[in-house]
Amino acid sequence: MNDSFKDECAVVGVYNCKKAAFLAYYSLFSMQHRGQEASGISSSENQKIITIKNRGLVTDVFNQDNLMQLKGSMAIGHNRYSTAGEDSIFDAQPIFARYGLGEISVVHNGNLINAQALRDMLIARGSIFQGFMDTEIFIHLIAQSNKAILQDRILDALQQVKGAYSLVFLSRSKMFAIRDPYGLRPLCLGKIYNDDGSCGYVVASESCAFDLINAVYIRDVLPGEMLIFKEGNPPESLMISERKIPHPCIFEYVYFARPDSKVFGRMVYSVRKEMGMQLTKEKPVEADMVIPVPDSGVAAALGYSQASQIPFELGIIRNHYVGRTFIEPTQSVREIKVKLKLNPIAEIIRDKRLIVIDDSIVRGTTSRQIVRLLRDAGAKEIHMRISSPPTISPCFYGVDTPNKDELISARMDLEQICTYIEADSLAYLSLEGLRNSLKCHPDELFCQACFDGNYIIS
Amino acid sequence: MNDSFKDECAVVGVYNCKKAAFLAYYSLFSMQHRGQEASGISSSENQKIITIKNRGLVTDVFNQDNLMQLKGSMAIGHNRYSTAGEDSIFDAQPIFARYGLGEISVVHNGNLINAQALRDMLIARGSIFQGFMDTEIFIHLIAQSNKAILQDRILDALQQVKGAYSLVFLSRSKMFAIRDPYGLRPLCLGKIYNDDGSCGYVVASESCAFDLINAVYIRDVLPGEMLIFKEGNPPESLMISERKIPHPCIFEYVYFARPDSKVFGRMVYSVRKEMGMQLTKEKPVEADMVIPVPDSGVAAALGYSQASQIPFELGIIRNHYVGRTFIEPTQSVREIKVKLKLNPIAEIIRDKRLIVIDDSIVRGTTSRQIVRLLRDAGAKEIHMRISSPPTISPCFYGVDTPNKDELISARMDLEQICTYIEADSLAYLSLEGLRNSLKCHPDELFCQACFDGNYIIS
Amino acid sequence: MNDSFKDECAVVGVYNCKKAAFLAYYSLFSMQHRGQEASGISSSENQKIITIKNRGLVTDVFNQDNLMQLKGSMAIGHNRYSTAGEDSIFDAQPIFARYGLGEISVVHNGNLINAQALRDMLIARGSIFQGFMDTEIFIHLIAQSNKAILQDRILDALQQVKGAYSLVFLSRSKMFAIRDPYGLRPLCLGKIYNDDGSCGYVVASESCAFDLINAVYIRDVLPGEMLIFKEGNPPESLMISERKIPHPCIFEYVYFARPDSKVFGRMVYSVRKEMGMQLTKEKPVEADMVIPVPDSGVAAALGYSQASQIPFELGIIRNHYVGRTFIEPTQSVREIKVKLKLNPIAEIIRDKRLIVIDDSIVRGTTSRQIVRLLRDAGAKEIHMRISSPPTISPCFYGVDTPNKDELISARMDLEQICTYIEADSLAYLSLEGLRNSLKCHPDELFCQACFDGNYIIS
Amino acid sequence: MNDSFKDECAVVGVYNCKKAAFLAYYSLFSMQHRGQEASGISSSENQKIITIKNRGLVTDVFNQDNLMQLKGSMAIGHNRYSTAGEDSIFDAQPIFARYGLGEISVVHNGNLINAQALRDMLIARGSIFQGFMDTEIFIHLIAQSNKAILQDRILDALQQVKGAYSLVFLSRSKMFAIRDPYGLRPLCLGKIYNDDGSCGYVVASESCAFDLINAVYIRDVLPGEMLIFKEGNPPESLMISERKIPHPCIFEYVYFARPDSKVFGRMVYSVRKEMGMQLTKEKPVEADMVIPVPDSGVAAALGYSQASQIPFELGIIRNHYVGRTFIEPTQSVREIKVKLKLNPIAEIIRDKRLIVIDDSIVRGTTSRQIVRLLRDAGAKEIHMRISSPPTISPCFYGVDTPNKDELISARMDLEQICTYIEADSLAYLSLEGLRNSLKCHPDELFCQACFDGNYIIS
Repeated sequence: MNDSFKDECAVVGVYNCKKAAFLAYYSLFSMQHRGQEASGISSSENQKIITIKNRGLVTDVFNQDNLMQLKGSMAIGHNRYSTAGEDSIFDAQPIFARYGLGEISVVHNGNLINAQALRDMLIARGSIFQGFMDTEIFIHLIAQSNKAILQDRILDALQQVKGAYSLVFLSRSKMFAIRDPYGLRPLCLGKIYNDDGSCGYVVASESCAFDLINAVYIRDVLPGEMLIFKEGNPPESLMISERKIPHPCIFEYVYFARPDSKVFGRMVYSVRKEMGMQLTKEKPVEADMVIPVPDSGVAAALGYSQASQIPFELGIIRNHYVGRTFIEPTQSVREIKVKLKLNPIAEIIRDKRLIVIDDSIVRGTTSRQIVRLLRDAGAKEIHMRISSPPTISPCFYGVDTPNKDELISARMDLEQICTYIEADSLAYLSLEGLRNSLKCHPDELFCQACFDGNYIIS
Repeated sequence: MNDSFKDECAVVGVYNCKKAAFLAYYSLFSMQHRGQEASGISSSENQKIITIKNRGLVTDVFNQDNLMQLKGSMAIGHNRYSTAGEDSIFDAQPIFARYGLGEISVVHNGNLINAQALRDMLIARGSIFQGFMDTEIFIHLIAQSNKAILQDRILDALQQVKGAYSLVFLSRSKMFAIRDPYGLRPLCLGKIYNDDGSCGYVVASESCAFDLINAVYIRDVLPGEMLIFKEGNPPESLMISERKIPHPCIFEYVYFARPDSKVFGRMVYSVRKEMGMQLTKEKPVEADMVIPVPDSGVAAALGYSQASQIPFELGIIRNHYVGRTFIEPTQSVREIKVKLKLNPIAEIIRDKRLIVIDDSIVRGTTSRQIVRLLRDAGAKEIHMRISSPPTISPCFYGVDTPNKDELISARMDLEQICTYIEADSLAYLSLEGLRNSLKCHPDELFCQACFDGNYIIS
Repeated sequence: MNDSFKDECAVVGVYNCKKAAFLAYYSLFSMQHRGQEASGISSSENQKIITIKNRGLVTDVFNQDNLMQLKGSMAIGHNRYSTAGEDSIFDAQPIFARYGLGEISVVHNGNLINAQALRDMLIARGSIFQGFMDTEIFIHLIAQSNKAILQDRILDALQQVKGAYSLVFLSRSKMFAIRDPYGLRPLCLGKIYNDDGSCGYVVASESCAFDLINAVYIRDVLPGEMLIFKEGNPPESLMISERKIPHPCIFEYVYFARPDSKVFGRMVYSVRKEMGMQLTKEKPVEADMVIPVPDSGVAAALGYSQASQIPFELGIIRNHYVGRTFIEPTQSVREIKVKLKLNPIAEIIRDKRLIVIDDSIVRGTTSRQIVRLLRDAGAKEIHMRISSPPTISPCFYGVDTPNKDELISARMDLEQICTYIEADSLAYLSLEGLRNSLKCHPDELFCQACFDGNYIIS
Repeated sequence: MNDSFKDECAVVGVYNCKKAAFLAYYSLFSMQHRGQEASGISSSENQKIITIKNRGLVTDVFNQDNLMQLKGSMAIGHNRYSTAGEDSIFDAQPIFARYGLGEISVVHNGNLINAQALRDMLIARGSIFQGFMDTEIFIHLIAQSNKAILQDRILDALQQVKGAYSLVFLSRSKMFAIRDPYGLRPLCLGKIYNDDGSCGYVVASESCAFDLINAVYIRDVLPGEMLIFKEGNPPESLMISERKIPHPCIFEYVYFARPDSKVFGRMVYSVRKEMGMQLTKEKPVEADMVIPVPDSGVAAALGYSQASQIPFELGIIRNHYVGRTFIEPTQSVREIKVKLKLNPIAEIIRDKRLIVIDDSIVRGTTSRQIVRLLRDAGAKEIHMRISSPPTISPCFYGVDTPNKDELISARMDLEQICTYIEADSLAYLSLEGLRNSLKCHPDELFCQACFDGNYIIS
């Protein structure tokens, strides 16, 4: 249960489908786990783009009435994660603007490394920024490009940005989907067979979006690729820059993505199970049962159990009704927050030696609370096994992580952390083990900066 | 995923605890799965009972402000399930009334067999009914009793009712918790150690409520027992009638209760796992993996897997963000309703022989939809295994079931159902196997009318 | 501006009209001034009564969707005023019940003198009361009557109650409208010409309701009369008791009713103007202008001005956007409450001698605040003239008045009040003058207990 | 009742006052009549500007909680009117931006004549527009100015714009209030004496805002004047351009402003009464009574009555509870819209010859409906008298008027209009009469383009 790494974002684009906004809505619904703070959709019809966005879950923001206003066969959408300080409606996406070539709307998952420099440059030129999102930067760069057509302007803009981005642009007649040259954030392409025999296309952060709307997964948008959707045709592909060595975010496998999604060509569920198996090999421990911290630790725990032959048990039950309002507790806030979600089954774990599988430890406070809950429920031994390496560095590529000095692994060694979280033993999957779980070619690279501090872009 | 048997209700009573209403609130929150239609709490202070109730989830109905209005050290609460026709605020509980001895409020889980006769009798005597709930009947009977004290009046009333009831009454100075003589519906007793050294008490439908508020499970309220909470003392126990042979509802184990609850003295999770193991023994089948229909089939699937040594996989992922508003689908309503919740992982199940574990089949439409989803995802064989016997009769004891002619098992034989749901094979746990899972003494009886049509009260 | 006498209630009944609930809705909207706390409508169709009610203004409670659920050609409705302590949804009306003869719903404007005795009697017999309104008493009495038909039961019930009531009962096939024998509260009858040539009927507290729905005012329901609407016919009339001398509430003319309503056979606007004229005769004073406290003093001020030939000016402007939420003021609460509503026009009143007309003084605090506002705005002299006699006694017949010891006229003499409110002079219309304004026959009587302390029923 | 000319906007700025946002809130509340569509406030503290804005009334948008977030001693606020097509939250004000010199927020009442040209120019330079309001233009011009300090950049920007504007800018340490050189839209200056002996300042569209917050009216901001609030000092004054002949909007007197406001140095109430008196002189008619169309015609009707000695009567009563939701009517939409607001008192006007005073006629449909209501109520003669000249031209300076071809006076002559609205006679105040009502010096000019089609800026 990774409470400290907040989720990131979800993007979707729908092209050449009847009621495109409804498909965008369902897609966003299926990717709700990537962002619960705000949601929005733009659709384009009759040379006019309409945008509806607001704070709240997808089902809070949209209803039959306002979805009906989003007419047309092209739509883009976005779910935003909750940022710490500035939870304002102004930063909800899509971001829409009128500019030199007409109208444009854009959704963005990622983060720019040179955002401040670009903002400074743009502001020095007289641009104004109405929100805090990097996304505004793209529109300014496009607006200030001197190229004649939008496609060239987007390319122009992308030459100037450094960082992670999966983008979908909507103009009044076209749609563009782009992944940054390192392919840091996911974006995949699906196809829809329309009733009239024509084909529609969908791009989405995760393939689980396709399943709900009966789209067929085709492939990932490639790192550095721009897909151009126009004139009802299948997308044209264009490489936006000289080829770079892709470094997709390895943490998508660890935590972000839904287990039923295919990300960077692999099913997340299978990868997570494999991580659990690797963890068994690397960090075995004698115990009576393997229990996951639900829901994020479930697949890895299954793998650990299968590899170790130690029985898998759902020793902690998760209450999924947790909402966002929080009534004054009768106990400490930190304690109740975890207890509202998680309840150990005392009779299962009493006097048992437990292997507890979680995906990661960020600040350590949640893990300590879980260990205490299990201890109170009578666990004899608690062996915490983490299905990823220690998180030692913040992410600068689109994930809302705490500062480095809040990361427990950046401040303490393994033994200290184990003491802090009050476990009997603690072990992490090695970075090599994580890579093994992916069964990747030795040359295949990932961004693993959160684990090793090596930032591919800086 | 049992969509047709609606959940029933949850009741809670808190006695001699500071901020009793907050404890009732947290208890109701942890029992939200038993009823999502309406929620309410009454508290008693200074010879005055205050009640707040409304439609919606616990977290919708209550907030810091209105909980603060519910002062005092005694409180009762209720979650109500959604009934088909009459979803009105008038039927939310607690039901409060002023009567001959002052003020009373009551919460009720269950259903009376002789409700209509009692209503007719009461109406003939001049009583009026403002809602549709049986709960009003109890208050009328109490109000019309000629006994001098409330306790005797409650006993009087209980002599007249026939059926299932777990009740908590709140007067201005006392609290009464009662289970019907057959003990059809659950109710358990917990204890809270107050900061000042005194003890408080909690009664709740399920023990998971105790865990969240740091109460200790003591025991079940006994069938036919009345617990009297007064003067700050531990509860006095009184049997309300000559002893009957208890027949607690066996379906609580199959579906209703949270797996981390202790119900009728057994941990639900363990019972469900055992049901899966029994099912393996009774209805084995060669296959590549065991997958549950989440969340209700998970524990039984684990048991089936452990007993059969066929690997357990989470082959279907559940989206927990499903809300109550429902946007016009682009496909048939029935289909989208299931797809919004459940998504199979194609890469796991493709070309595989699946054992799919669900807790029950009611109308058959949901099961058919699940089989189709799995088939579309590439499953080679689908062997549906149900961890309870065929549901052939409706419940008259507090569960909102369809009419008999809507129950697929009442209309079709096994083979026909298998054909209808389009599975390769279908098998149910036998009633004997279900009883075996409970590891009960041969003399221990349960209400299993939904499976065998034998109604203990009529 | 009478802030201390709260408004009372509005009732409406619609019979034999298509979409009766919509007509009830519009009627309630036009009588919103009589109660802003809660609103509700019951309609009857196919032997079934449906009720929707909630806290809030008419336009808050109802929308297209829920009005559509209130089917049928008969409907009754109610607006409730805000009572001090118990603002709960449970006391919203209509009050619905199932009883010996089927279903009934009722709305009530008024108050019973023997409510406590009846409650005690009913409770002693075993009745329960779920709310605080007298209205429940009527239903209990009807339910306990041994008469065979509803009409007789209502008559039975009415024999037992003492007090003020304008009632509308809705059964599954009939509607009954009744005024108490003294006719204390208003109720008038109107007719609607349906598109199909048939006639519908409406009863409402004020005739302004008729104007909005194109109903024609026919006459008042008579004191002691019951109108029976059945079988689509024009109403039958029945006297419910031996004839009493009517005593309708004189304060309806002073404050409650809308000026465009006909109440007890007289247009309210005309009566109020006449009150102003009488006031001129009785309590003339030399001044530069007459200004009303808006809106309640406007008509009387016009009369005062016309009779005195002193110019009428709207020297105080009222802000009608005042809502119910109240943001922490930067000044004292009492002061801002008046200022949010009323703003004097300094340039009009500066250095002027003002005659300020208000309808009544209850506690005196509001009047003092108004005098201060005018003084701050530069008024040279402020002569307060009240278009009714001093309010010395509380109302027990359906109006929410403060206790006697809070009524400034019950505690102070004229001079003391004048000093307290800081006016230069103060004068009230005499009771005789008030009667003269009504141009009534010497034998015509009114309930004027609030002015003379003579209670016709006790 | 002018339903077709929508209201315009309200702006407010508060400087050097404790809890400035609360004062802005109260000011906006008192100017709610100038815009009901959206409301917003920015406040500045600690070098940071925070903005909260949303759709809805002032009391809908703000509550204790969010006002508390708007800290600091400087705040600006805005009420927006409802525009036809694009009612989006994106166009709510204040508009905030980060730009070359830091942060800025702005509120604007008015309209630019060269908006499209400026947009085109800015877009050609690469600017992007996220909303539809002219207000964004100001920020772009400021951002692109090469001046070193904000004050000079504002001056720079103002050189480029042509049109009507009353503006308040908020930076992180200063506030600027500006009226365009022609002074088309109002803006006045008030002073607040703080508890600590210091002085605060307020600028607002109307002086009624000052009354509620105990500010003292000082003077109008002059046409072409910029007031600079900084370092806690009284405002510095600077003329933004060579002196022009002021042309303030004469329609503020006719309709927009609250009668208790001082606008352009005159009390609106007095001016309107004078307009009624002029109208008597110009367009006398024999009749039994003068009645206003409430509320906008009241003051003029009083004047007409006083000058003509024909009695003033409130023959039409207005229901102030009219909300924004609109339930399916049982009659035509147009008819019910007027009836929901206005109800004639039949007994007053029956068989009477009426002079009906309204402030203006725009499309004529509302007037026709009013005439019909009065005719149905029995009026013998209806003489419509309009307290302004025929509205023949749309406004381009900040008022949302229909197109010219929707203005009845642009399409029909007097007689035709009279026939259309079904009155017995119709007469308008002459432009000269309107000017006379203002008692202005012959050289004093006003923008009266809506009456004479002469646009001072084009």
